[in-house]
Amino acid sequence: MSPAFNLLELAIRLGARLVGGDDAVVRGVRPLDEAGPSDLSFLHNARYLVQARESRAAAILLDDAELLPGRPVLVTPNPYRSLAAALELFYPVPQPPAGIHPSAVVDPSAVIHGSASIGPQAVVGAGCRIGAGSVIGAGSVLGSDAVLGDGCLLHPRVVVEDRCRVGDRCVLHAGVVIGSDGFGFATSDGIHHKVPQVGIVVLEDDVELGANVCVDRATLGETRIGRGTKVDNLVQIAHNVHIGEGTLLVAQVGISGSTRLGHHVIMAGQSGAAGHLTIGDGAIVGAKSAVIKDVPDGQFVTGYPAVPHREWLRASAGVRRLDRLGQRIALLEKRISELTAGTIGGGR
Amino acid sequence: MSPAFNLLELAIRLGARLVGGDDAVVRGVRPLDEAGPSDLSFLHNARYLVQARESRAAAILLDDAELLPGRPVLVTPNPYRSLAAALELFYPVPQPPAGIHPSAVVDPSAVIHGSASIGPQAVVGAGCRIGAGSVIGAGSVLGSDAVLGDGCLLHPRVVVEDRCRVGDRCVLHAGVVIGSDGFGFATSDGIHHKVPQVGIVVLEDDVELGANVCVDRATLGETRIGRGTKVDNLVQIAHNVHIGEGTLLVAQVGISGSTRLGHHVIMAGQSGAAGHLTIGDGAIVGAKSAVIKDVPDGQFVTGYPAVPHREWLRASAGVRRLDRLGQRIALLEKRISELTAGTIGGGR
Amino acid sequence: MSPAFNLLELAIRLGARLVGGDDAVVRGVRPLDEAGPSDLSFLHNARYLVQARESRAAAILLDDAELLPGRPVLVTPNPYRSLAAALELFYPVPQPPAGIHPSAVVDPSAVIHGSASIGPQAVVGAGCRIGAGSVIGAGSVLGSDAVLGDGCLLHPRVVVEDRCRVGDRCVLHAGVVIGSDGFGFATSDGIHHKVPQVGIVVLEDDVELGANVCVDRATLGETRIGRGTKVDNLVQIAHNVHIGEGTLLVAQVGISGSTRLGHHVIMAGQSGAAGHLTIGDGAIVGAKSAVIKDVPDGQFVTGYPAVPHREWLRASAGVRRLDRLGQRIALLEKRISELTAGTIGGGR
Repeated sequence: MSPAFNLLELAIRLGARLVGGDDAVVRGVRPLDEAGPSDLSFLHNARYLVQARESRAAAILLDDAELLPGRPVLVTPNPYRSLAAALELFYPVPQPPAGIHPSAVVDPSAVIHGSASIGPQAVVGAGCRIGAGSVIGAGSVLGSDAVLGDGCLLHPRVVVEDRCRVGDRCVLHAGVVIGSDGFGFATSDGIHHKVPQVGIVVLEDDVELGANVCVDRATLGETRIGRGTKVDNLVQIAHNVHIGEGTLLVAQVGISGSTRLGHHVIMAGQSGAAGHLTIGDGAIVGAKSAVIKDVPDGQFVTGYPAVPHREWLRASAGVRRLDRLGQRIALLEKRISELTAGTIGGGR
Repeated sequence: MSPAFNLLELAIRLGARLVGGDDAVVRGVRPLDEAGPSDLSFLHNARYLVQARESRAAAILLDDAELLPGRPVLVTPNPYRSLAAALELFYPVPQPPAGIHPSAVVDPSAVIHGSASIGPQAVVGAGCRIGAGSVIGAGSVLGSDAVLGDGCLLHPRVVVEDRCRVGDRCVLHAGVVIGSDGFGFATSDGIHHKVPQVGIVVLEDDVELGANVCVDRATLGETRIGRGTKVDNLVQIAHNVHIGEGTLLVAQVGISGSTRLGHHVIMAGQSGAAGHLTIGDGAIVGAKSAVIKDVPDGQFVTGYPAVPHREWLRASAGVRRLDRLGQRIALLEKRISELTAGTIGGGR
Repeated sequence: MSPAFNLLELAIRLGARLVGGDDAVVRGVRPLDEAGPSDLSFLHNARYLVQARESRAAAILLDDAELLPGRPVLVTPNPYRSLAAALELFYPVPQPPAGIHPSAVVDPSAVIHGSASIGPQAVVGAGCRIGAGSVIGAGSVLGSDAVLGDGCLLHPRVVVEDRCRVGDRCVLHAGVVIGSDGFGFATSDGIHHKVPQVGIVVLEDDVELGANVCVDRATLGETRIGRGTKVDNLVQIAHNVHIGEGTLLVAQVGISGSTRLGHHVIMAGQSGAAGHLTIGDGAIVGAKSAVIKDVPDGQFVTGYPAVPHREWLRASAGVRRLDRLGQRIALLEKRISELTAGTIGGGR
């Protein structure tokens, strides 16, 4: 049976202010257009205001009661954050049972906390350590001497290769590969000789990696992802990259070898960075942009190659007005011709 | 033993018209440059006309007999479609045996049709339902309460996470992940708090997803892919995206959260769309383009950011002619200088 | 116990010249900033010269002793290549035991060399052949009649679908998919009918594929990757693509169907090529560039669409100077106005 709360209880639990409303009982959270009279819904993007007005939800989470006068709302400074809390309340995540599934293959030298859960068909190599409450999804593979902290969640079919280290409370989605070899070859006479990649990958605490993300091990030393950094699906992180804390990498981003990202950087979808660069704290890289030189702290860059966003906007606007430039030049040419003719005519 | 047909039989089975030809027996289908006297080949792209003339094939599928006068051809209005039919004829797909492989781990509460096939090392969670004739490839993992229709083909190592629903006759290639969490975080004080992603993914009937494609579950409600939509390898589909019917997404496309694509949209390779947009029915997005605002029905957009294709062509041509613009301006400057000098000289 | 060498022994084994140095014993290889007095380090990029000067390493591999006067160095014409040799020396790769892990599922008709190693939870289909010393990682799946040469290394969770062929000494990283269906559909009346993909994938010897790379099988015939070609993570190679020898594809590259790449091509990260093109021997495609027409041998192309690099540089510089062009035109307009006024005034 799923949980139920009346609106006042809900307001208290979410630290929100109830405006309007009655004794409706809320049993779930649904989007504005699907919510019924026993659902909570939320408004965090003004473009959905009409849907919010028409929604049948028992109440709506938002940050300004004035947006929806005359209907029950729960007002909170960060509605998206309160939505997260509401979802945790109504949809507790089922925890798989502790212990090792009989179909899993676990090396006897691995040290696994008694409260951890090793799923069906998983493989845990020699010398691994897995902390309290961590969950290893079905079919996941940990190589030798991999280390996982407490409270990690590995979805199905994750690979953590030999000696890589994952902090506490990390979430790795299905298909993640940690510790593949960096792309390092020494070319002589047209032959690409493999440079052994003997470093590791370190994920600090509270890192989340999306589905099919790849993080290469360092040639030497570490590829490191800082505490609280979140990475979307299909992102590529090359060898010896270092990423600071609280950074966000949106889907399909690619970061080349040895590049360093600071804290709270945002790289939007499909953007990329060349190797051996530094992208400073709080920098923002626009979608699909290509960073080919260092980005100072706090700078917002866009484009191909990436330049400060305002420069890019101006250049883009200029390109759109190229036709107009051409027309102005043609007009000048015509007037000069006339003028020359006139001058010549008038001058003689 | 593989099937064999003489050309006339083949023409009848493919609904094609035989022009020229004899009693050759065809035993397979091969590309123009590899085909021998017992092979069928095909011509569907004019750039291969020379190869077609030189081909040793018994006959060639095409849409216009005039292209290859004097040699046996099978004429059909859609040669690529007839090629598909011929390939089905000569290369029937082997069906794995029905039943559950002894190495698979299937929860006793799962309901699996007797004609379905569950491959080695597969995992089927509690409450799953799998329809008639569906095939679950080796090492694939279905979470709890996942639902698959009839006649689906899951290649090896596919993941369908909890509660996601797959229609009839869907094909999921190796490494596909359905139902990973959407990239949703509520940031306060620099900490990215996870917003639980409690929605699902729904694939309607006849959807095909390429290798290592990722489809995130909705925050709430559904991420949905419409009937007959085909998705190429390494595509990213974010939470709450809705895609219409018969749409084509080419390799490495990325679609951000809550964006809606209509029916029969085409997004070419490596293109992307920002979030909360609408891309109308029949719209086409050029390769590598970045859609950052709504695209009306039927519009062809290209570029970064994507604009109507003709605008993009004009702007690109303009950029290529920038040198010329600069030269014209320099010439004008020179003539103005001369003129000014002349005028001044002449005027006084 | 790990190996140890004094500097002179090391110089001999690496074919390097020892300049300076003493009887230090080297026990490992570490980056410049982490190396201690018993570590070898290396300098292969001038931007790390300061770090090299400050490094505590016993000796540093480089190509010019003048760069670090007065400290022990090992001089070699290709320091990166010597680094590779040193890493092999100090970090020999542990070889998993020969034989078939009891949890693996191997079809009795498969022919597996006695020295090969089949990891836990792996699946080897009917008719497969696996050569001497090859290693199949945990959870990998080989379809029916797949063929692997000698000395291959398949990391965990690789998929090689039916009938695909892998040469000797190939390395396939975790999550690689070889032999997924090409993206081929014949559309009639808005329905996309699948064109069966009955060809195969052939990897020649010494090919390396990065994590989660996808290589589609040919519609007919082969998708082929030439000897010694190296492919980085998350690359997409479509059906019927042919790639020559010694080519490098950096992360997230995408190559469309039937395109041919020559020998020793380099495609930088996130670049793409349209279908049915030819990219000549030794060509270079810049990062994120989009190739939409043939590229001659040896040409370096960049941009969207890709043009010869110098043209792209000129066009990019032109776009950055657009403001200046506009200002020059405005100035001309002003002068023409003045001139016209003056001429008119002066002429009457």
